[in-house]
Amino acid sequence: MTGPDDRWPDLAGALTGEGHLLAVRVYYEDTDFSGVVYHASYLRFMERGRSDFLRLCGIHHNQLDAGLAGERLAFAVRHMDIDFLKPARIDDVLEVHTVCEQARGARLVLAQEVRRGAEVLIKARVTAAVINAEGKPRRMPKDLAARLQQ
Amino acid sequence: MTGPDDRWPDLAGALTGEGHLLAVRVYYEDTDFSGVVYHASYLRFMERGRSDFLRLCGIHHNQLDAGLAGERLAFAVRHMDIDFLKPARIDDVLEVHTVCEQARGARLVLAQEVRRGAEVLIKARVTAAVINAEGKPRRMPKDLAARLQQ
Amino acid sequence: MTGPDDRWPDLAGALTGEGHLLAVRVYYEDTDFSGVVYHASYLRFMERGRSDFLRLCGIHHNQLDAGLAGERLAFAVRHMDIDFLKPARIDDVLEVHTVCEQARGARLVLAQEVRRGAEVLIKARVTAAVINAEGKPRRMPKDLAARLQQ
Amino acid sequence: MTGPDDRWPDLAGALTGEGHLLAVRVYYEDTDFSGVVYHASYLRFMERGRSDFLRLCGIHHNQLDAGLAGERLAFAVRHMDIDFLKPARIDDVLEVHTVCEQARGARLVLAQEVRRGAEVLIKARVTAAVINAEGKPRRMPKDLAARLQQ
Repeated sequence: MTGPDDRWPDLAGALTGEGHLLAVRVYYEDTDFSGVVYHASYLRFMERGRSDFLRLCGIHHNQLDAGLAGERLAFAVRHMDIDFLKPARIDDVLEVHTVCEQARGARLVLAQEVRRGAEVLIKARVTAAVINAEGKPRRMPKDLAARLQQ
Repeated sequence: MTGPDDRWPDLAGALTGEGHLLAVRVYYEDTDFSGVVYHASYLRFMERGRSDFLRLCGIHHNQLDAGLAGERLAFAVRHMDIDFLKPARIDDVLEVHTVCEQARGARLVLAQEVRRGAEVLIKARVTAAVINAEGKPRRMPKDLAARLQQ
Repeated sequence: MTGPDDRWPDLAGALTGEGHLLAVRVYYEDTDFSGVVYHASYLRFMERGRSDFLRLCGIHHNQLDAGLAGERLAFAVRHMDIDFLKPARIDDVLEVHTVCEQARGARLVLAQEVRRGAEVLIKARVTAAVINAEGKPRRMPKDLAARLQQ
Repeated sequence: MTGPDDRWPDLAGALTGEGHLLAVRVYYEDTDFSGVVYHASYLRFMERGRSDFLRLCGIHHNQLDAGLAGERLAFAVRHMDIDFLKPARIDDVLEVHTVCEQARGARLVLAQEVRRGAEVLIKARVTAAVINAEGKPRRMPKDLAARLQQ
């Protein structure tokens, strides 16, 4: 039996030697009246990259949310430092690059870039935390930390 | 003691003889590269109008979600029929008009318009249902139905 | 030379015998606190499907916007009728199916569905118009109309 | 004659001794399945604060875009540093505080906070630039710089 994940093998991007790579198309919804991509849309693109990086490492938000790790867990962004270097435009194909710099305790530090071909449009450092339903930080499952840092 | 609701008395709009009126400003986030408001943004504006209509009728999403009506409840949109008549633009002040046409059982039918001054930009009929956490339809609390239809 | 479109061959979905098929992943950004996908997110998914259908028919928004068809053109949604049948959830892989029912003059009528495997979650009929920068309807280039209706 | 700006006097927030204050309600659209506000939604809230700060200083995006300052101008975000301290939830009334730290040449540096009552939920420093339609930085009109820094 083949599911949609088999029919669309690239949908979650690809693990690279260094981290993860996800292709993202710019649609109407991502742009604003100034003619380029709205600044907060890049945060949505980078979150897709992080989610699919975790997915290819075997971590699914719906399983964390269902309590498969013992209690309901989710990732929450704690800090972002973002340089908006060049604008993307409608129809562009962008690539979100994600590298895990640190995965220790409840804390995940990622370096992310949004590129169009060789051009770096956005450069960000993102700190996320694993939290439970009450918002308390929770130690990341060890095997997850290991897989993210390979 | 004054809370933010006292400091910003217009924030939830106003009940009118017929229903509810909410002012909405058009920001960067609502527009797209074609220079006007992105079509799905009007659905966000109309949802704000419905939420504030319910709020001024004494219904709060956070209370429904917390189970104050006996179990966790939420509103889900079931059907929309929308005419996009004229475009709105950055900086426009729009008004969302909401009239309750029917509130019976689990079902709510609302007529909504988004206007700029006297011009009607968007005309919609929206059917929503009250559902529990499993997505099953639930009879609306009687007093809510009564208040919406006054 | 290979560009990103070559590296990600599925990114714009696929033409089918009847129309077009696009895979869409549900991310954090698409959901709301009720636990499922926010109703207006489906309109974004369907717009992606329409854009990629046009793209695979050789029509690019950036070319229309640049005036390649003689003057600046864009597509504007005029009417939508939408049934929200079942909810999608975080991590779901959805497929947007788009069939062109009519492409004549300035007017395009499309039937769209959002499916999860065999389940139809959303069913919509969408009328769009080709307009110029002043919002006036413009006759669709003949070859476009022909390609959409094959 | 009264326009919508007269009927909704609080819609653009208020100038304070130090800068600007805007009330923002949390709606369905702002939240995600984890139950709290989606991290990128705070950037939308802060952009609303910046736009209304400029508005009350007499600067309108539609006028800049129409070339009233000599050529088409817009603001573009260049850098953001954001601490996500505490989560906001559905129905919350938030206040966006914006203080102009620097307005010189093409460059604007703003300190922004999103608060719920006395709690600071989000703390950000934002650098924006005035650019023309080609994306080139353009010196800010002198009177604008003066008004922002009063």
